[in-house]
Amino acid sequence: MGSGSAANGGGGGAGAARVPMPAAKPFLETLGGNMKETFLPDDPFRVVRRERGCGRRAAAALRYVFPFMEWAPSYTLGTLKSDLIAGITIASLAIPQGISYAKLANLPPVLGLYSSFVPPLVYAMMGSSRDLAVGTVAVASLLIGSMLSEEVSAAEDPALYLHVALTATFFAGVFQALLGVLRLGFIVDFLSHATIVGFMGGAATVVCLQQLKGMFGLDHFTTATDLVSVMRSVFSQTHLWRWESVVMGCGFLFFLLITRFFSKRRTRFFWVSAAAPLASVIIGSLLVYVTHAENHGIQVIGYLKKGLNPPSATSLNFSSPYMMLALKTGIITGVIALAEGIAVGRSFAMFKNYHIDGNKEMIAFGTMNIVGSLTSCYLTTGPFSRSAVNYNAGCKTAMSNVIMSVAVMITLLFLTPLFHYTPLVVLSAIIMSAMLGLIDYPAAVHLWQVDKVDFCVCLGAYLGVVFGSVEIGLVVAVGISILRVLLFVARPRTTVLGNIPNTMIYRRMDQYTAAQRVPGVLVLRVDSPIYFTNASYLRERIARWIDDEEDQCKEKGEMQFQYVVLDMGAVGSIDTSGTSMLDELRKTLDRRGLQFSYLPLPFQIVLANPGSEIMKKLDSSKVLEAIGHEWIFPTVGEAVAECDFVMHSQKPGMVMGSGAPHENLV
Amino acid sequence: MGSGSAANGGGGGAGAARVPMPAAKPFLETLGGNMKETFLPDDPFRVVRRERGCGRRAAAALRYVFPFMEWAPSYTLGTLKSDLIAGITIASLAIPQGISYAKLANLPPVLGLYSSFVPPLVYAMMGSSRDLAVGTVAVASLLIGSMLSEEVSAAEDPALYLHVALTATFFAGVFQALLGVLRLGFIVDFLSHATIVGFMGGAATVVCLQQLKGMFGLDHFTTATDLVSVMRSVFSQTHLWRWESVVMGCGFLFFLLITRFFSKRRTRFFWVSAAAPLASVIIGSLLVYVTHAENHGIQVIGYLKKGLNPPSATSLNFSSPYMMLALKTGIITGVIALAEGIAVGRSFAMFKNYHIDGNKEMIAFGTMNIVGSLTSCYLTTGPFSRSAVNYNAGCKTAMSNVIMSVAVMITLLFLTPLFHYTPLVVLSAIIMSAMLGLIDYPAAVHLWQVDKVDFCVCLGAYLGVVFGSVEIGLVVAVGISILRVLLFVARPRTTVLGNIPNTMIYRRMDQYTAAQRVPGVLVLRVDSPIYFTNASYLRERIARWIDDEEDQCKEKGEMQFQYVVLDMGAVGSIDTSGTSMLDELRKTLDRRGLQFSYLPLPFQIVLANPGSEIMKKLDSSKVLEAIGHEWIFPTVGEAVAECDFVMHSQKPGMVMGSGAPHENLV
Repeated sequence: MGSGSAANGGGGGAGAARVPMPAAKPFLETLGGNMKETFLPDDPFRVVRRERGCGRRAAAALRYVFPFMEWAPSYTLGTLKSDLIAGITIASLAIPQGISYAKLANLPPVLGLYSSFVPPLVYAMMGSSRDLAVGTVAVASLLIGSMLSEEVSAAEDPALYLHVALTATFFAGVFQALLGVLRLGFIVDFLSHATIVGFMGGAATVVCLQQLKGMFGLDHFTTATDLVSVMRSVFSQTHLWRWESVVMGCGFLFFLLITRFFSKRRTRFFWVSAAAPLASVIIGSLLVYVTHAENHGIQVIGYLKKGLNPPSATSLNFSSPYMMLALKTGIITGVIALAEGIAVGRSFAMFKNYHIDGNKEMIAFGTMNIVGSLTSCYLTTGPFSRSAVNYNAGCKTAMSNVIMSVAVMITLLFLTPLFHYTPLVVLSAIIMSAMLGLIDYPAAVHLWQVDKVDFCVCLGAYLGVVFGSVEIGLVVAVGISILRVLLFVARPRTTVLGNIPNTMIYRRMDQYTAAQRVPGVLVLRVDSPIYFTNASYLRERIARWIDDEEDQCKEKGEMQFQYVVLDMGAVGSIDTSGTSMLDELRKTLDRRGLQFSYLPLPFQIVLANPGSEIMKKLDSSKVLEAIGHEWIFPTVGEAVAECDFVMHSQKPGMVMGSGAPHENLV
Repeated sequence: MGSGSAANGGGGGAGAARVPMPAAKPFLETLGGNMKETFLPDDPFRVVRRERGCGRRAAAALRYVFPFMEWAPSYTLGTLKSDLIAGITIASLAIPQGISYAKLANLPPVLGLYSSFVPPLVYAMMGSSRDLAVGTVAVASLLIGSMLSEEVSAAEDPALYLHVALTATFFAGVFQALLGVLRLGFIVDFLSHATIVGFMGGAATVVCLQQLKGMFGLDHFTTATDLVSVMRSVFSQTHLWRWESVVMGCGFLFFLLITRFFSKRRTRFFWVSAAAPLASVIIGSLLVYVTHAENHGIQVIGYLKKGLNPPSATSLNFSSPYMMLALKTGIITGVIALAEGIAVGRSFAMFKNYHIDGNKEMIAFGTMNIVGSLTSCYLTTGPFSRSAVNYNAGCKTAMSNVIMSVAVMITLLFLTPLFHYTPLVVLSAIIMSAMLGLIDYPAAVHLWQVDKVDFCVCLGAYLGVVFGSVEIGLVVAVGISILRVLLFVARPRTTVLGNIPNTMIYRRMDQYTAAQRVPGVLVLRVDSPIYFTNASYLRERIARWIDDEEDQCKEKGEMQFQYVVLDMGAVGSIDTSGTSMLDELRKTLDRRGLQFSYLPLPFQIVLANPGSEIMKKLDSSKVLEAIGHEWIFPTVGEAVAECDFVMHSQKPGMVMGSGAPHENLV
């Protein structure tokens, strides 16, 4: 039936072109191709393959692993000048921020300085971003603090706490590097932009709330991070509030916010807001030193150990009962740190139009944290605020990280005593001012306008972090995101296509008002792969389309339709449940046809534009044979033309219910 | 640029047709529409809506909830005769199977009979399948047995064990009904066909292994279900093997397999294999009664309580420490039972060409199990073997379940003493023969041929069940299945399209050998929704396509290409990460264009055939504006024609590297 008559029906110009069956490929070759598409989408070995000769290839490979070898040979004095200015600027930000964030993680303040010394050097060699400034970040610090504090008390056993924190950093590094080596970078992609906006906003809010302790000069504070606990803790101690602390904190916060506002307005004066934290620290320390305010309720940092990072390989502890805690903390904070670092790196790369390889960055971050954990550093990544300052300061290469590192080294060697009188309340003000910039209110508005589900994800993450905990917020957001993907996969869209008059083009009836139904033929389009998750949904939904079409035919007294054309163009993949579904659909149509015995031909399912993978699967599962290879067409136009041709070879004008039984003509 | 010139370029017949922007719909209306597509794909209220008048609508609704009201009024004596034969046949199978499976769940044998009395009556009223025979199933029984035995010992505290099992059944029923009411039936779809084949095969193997206890007449046996433990248990007790038991077991197993083989060959004699289990029970019992074999190592069932199901509402225990165990067991076994029951119902509905509403079936199964748990029944569903016998015996309606139920009632009231001497080894033989039919070897071969990943899922489930435990097998299979879906969503396919000569049709170059590259234009097609999971992958992959195309241009000394046409026809949906990705792609192309200053026009991204949802999102995120609405076309053909037109309005013949800088003409 119908075989050989395609050329008559086809008017689309492609003539009798048939959907070709792909040549059988060896299993291993197919597997290899799929593996490459999955794990090496950006073809990282391209740079090596292009070179000829072993030596040049080795050099290319080395350049690939250590990107600094690309820019180092052509490094000039002019570039150095730019990097020097940028490096010193970010160092002035890194020192107070490092100390503040270490306190957020319940770690000794000096660890913040250590962490701004070694990791930037590692990143400068291995990282491919030219703008990223390496350092500790507030959210990851808070996360480390809250996760570890659940099982280990930093106040009661600081040595154990430090060991667990370093072990967690080590695991974070190993996990990050592993993700990169195994090219599993897409795991980070499961933290969508919406998740990150909500999560970051929530974390920033929580971090600000934690600073209320410093601002009010309180000694005791809740270990919980949620809004309710913190507010209860603050307002149950009103009699302990220290006005000196409040005045000083608000003053510096105001100063920092004003400078940021000013710098934002006039980007030429970026250095004003960049230098403001260090200026606050210097002014605050002088103020305390002169007035001896440390005796009047202003808490100060106190003694900071002089000297460079001590080695800490022996502090890593893989056998303690806290191993699992360190592993869990390491993996979660590692992923969060990666997500922030890669997002920041990518944004600036886009501004300057160069490419960043996510998987390579992961290896760089991982190595940096492994080395860091061996040299008394805790988790580092590329913080947004510092990188933005670096970018604005005109950095040219990763050399600015080296400059910053040298500046921190000098501080560690000679200047730590100067921080003795630095008031904690100034650090709180620095953190708060940095955090307020992370609450991205316009982004949330944008999400609401563009995509309501994304907005829900964002809000869920925010509320989860603020009213629950950082982990709860993350779980909520990732959960909603994945549920959304699964729902999409389980509930694909099917649409009826209509003909654009005077063309062979078929378009969605609900979108193109010009599209018209074709009498006798129902053209359906499936907008997703046919998988076990949606096979039975599609079966039901297509059955409903057929019912609807039948009702419509009856109402209008039209000819009973006979052909269901499935546009498979958007079906990227199919599995065995999918092929069974098509086979069941065919059988159902066959049986439906038997009810209308007056019809000249049984119902027929027709496939248009299936991809090569689909053709292969349909063939090997014998469904192709059952449908009939002559009912597969490269375009919807040709499929409908063939249906039309076969229908009109019959007695015309068959109206629903009026026809007598005909014999099958073929 | 280019605006207004589309009509010149378009040669596809659609003329200057533009991609229409969908009319703005109120948020709630969109939400409602999406909800309906998601949760009511089959439009279940259609039958009610069709009727006119309140009374008729109420009747239709009632008929919808209780499908027996549809067939009951037209029930005839002829139909009754068919159902009577089918009912008696399945009863003769249900009685020995019920007793055997109850032992598999470590429950009193009489519970198996109770469970074949009440639930079939409930299903007959509420179920929409005409062929399903309700009863307990081996896999769910084994699962209940192994899950509960981990925390409660059936031997030491049988009353507690019974209570927890009934509570689990209650939870299973509530969960099943809830899934149906909330129309979340798609959760069952996450158990793909491949998963079920592997899992069932594994479970059948494990159940067979468990029967070795009965076959060898062993008193003590491992509680583990994995192959290694069972084999060790069997072969460490070789001195305790009873030859009487082995001989009797093998004899009956041989008898049962022979009858099954015979019935399969001649379907007219289906009743031979259906009656064989009951015949075995009768012969076995007589044999023991006559020879007093119960004193020579043949274990017998012993005393079975006479009388109908006692009420068990007071046995349900919601406060004990075993609540969570019951809940967990209930949910897992409930889903497994649902998956089997619905799959079986659907298969037979397809044979007889009637429709089964999955969500309605869930409510029926759920109600049946809730009522069951209140009347001393444990988990029931629609077992495949019994339903197949029902179908072959020529059942016409769910009345056959009622007949079976009556037969079981008579047994419970009068015949239980007859089972006193039934040897356990016969029950083992019955289970083994039923289980061997569940290992679907040809299905596994089919999976290997059609889809290697599905085969891995199947094998994973099988090996997980056989060498681990039932839960492990299930977790492995569902895990691989979901990973596959996520991988698909995270790694969509992109392909280069080429022009089929002399047409406006564009097809995949790797599939259609006739398709040819268009000079100056790169046509790419994305085969999936653009989501946060794949946005950065797509960005990288598209960048690689562009690099490849540039390399090719250089090699061939062709004109540098300028246009990237994205065929969005298969992009069903987009989120904010997706719109950002397109915007970044546009910016990257803009910057690339600046490198080739001799080009007359900057690089341009062109979209072809975006769906209405995509258009809306692109518009609200301002990406549409940035790309330019004049660069959106309904077909690839028109898009390429326009690109061609604009390019050829410039100086022709620009060869890579040979052109001088031109001014932008627009």
